[in-house]
Amino acid sequence: MTQSTPAIPQTVIDLSPLRMLEAELLAMPPVAALGLRIVEATGDRLRLHAPLAPNINDKGCAFGGSLGSLMTLAGWGLIVLRLAEAGLDADVFVADSDIRYRAPLYADIETTAELAEGESWEDFLSTLRSRGRARLSVRAVVCLPEGGVATESLSRYAAKLRG
Amino acid sequence: MTQSTPAIPQTVIDLSPLRMLEAELLAMPPVAALGLRIVEATGDRLRLHAPLAPNINDKGCAFGGSLGSLMTLAGWGLIVLRLAEAGLDADVFVADSDIRYRAPLYADIETTAELAEGESWEDFLSTLRSRGRARLSVRAVVCLPEGGVATESLSRYAAKLRG
Repeated sequence: MTQSTPAIPQTVIDLSPLRMLEAELLAMPPVAALGLRIVEATGDRLRLHAPLAPNINDKGCAFGGSLGSLMTLAGWGLIVLRLAEAGLDADVFVADSDIRYRAPLYADIETTAELAEGESWEDFLSTLRSRGRARLSVRAVVCLPEGGVATESLSRYAAKLRG
Repeated sequence: MTQSTPAIPQTVIDLSPLRMLEAELLAMPPVAALGLRIVEATGDRLRLHAPLAPNINDKGCAFGGSLGSLMTLAGWGLIVLRLAEAGLDADVFVADSDIRYRAPLYADIETTAELAEGESWEDFLSTLRSRGRARLSVRAVVCLPEGGVATESLSRYAAKLRG
């Protein structure tokens, strides 16, 4: 007896900028290894999550390198999303990063990135449009589940129009 | 016809502090994901290597997070080895890290960590012995194969005697 295979419905995949960013992030092997997921994105804030297990160190808490990577990616993603929203096609690079490890984190990692004090999206986008390149500072923080800060960073990014 | 199985010679495994450090590093899932290997260790310098493939980003060069992780680990390992040599049983934590990304790296990552300017092993070890805790700054650098610097960092570590 043969069994008929049901036809697979053809759907149009409508990837939002957020899902496109997540797919772009996860296409990088070192980012896939972190187990990263986007949990919140507004125009002004991006929040990423990663489970503790793939990011655990010899002391049973979150590995400093993973915390640094996630904070760097949160800032990078925040800018990439804003550029997509503004219709600008640009590469974004991290230029430098200052990281402060305040307390060990014995839980999943959640980091939130926002513009650093004194920065403005309007200035950044207008400089990028007029000069083809611009810099922007982003602050990222990883909180402790019991309150307080586990890790925080201030990173500068450079964006460069493509083509 | 049966074939005799040759006896497997029983050897005593003599793990040097270097191999023990490598095993300790690779036991952490996020470090294993980097593909890290120790390539050189003197009392004053530790050099780590990681292939580009597991650490590649969306632009085909080394991911900033991986560079940061490797530099942080190089400094950490440098201190851990020196403590083992001094016969001190201590935990070592990274306290803060300033990273400068100078140029993209389209090759395997090799980072070298050394004491930062003005730091002294003697002062660090004697403070740790007398007070049970001490801090130390380490400089790490990733060079470009064609010469020049890809990335450099200055990180502060805290050591705390166990028990």
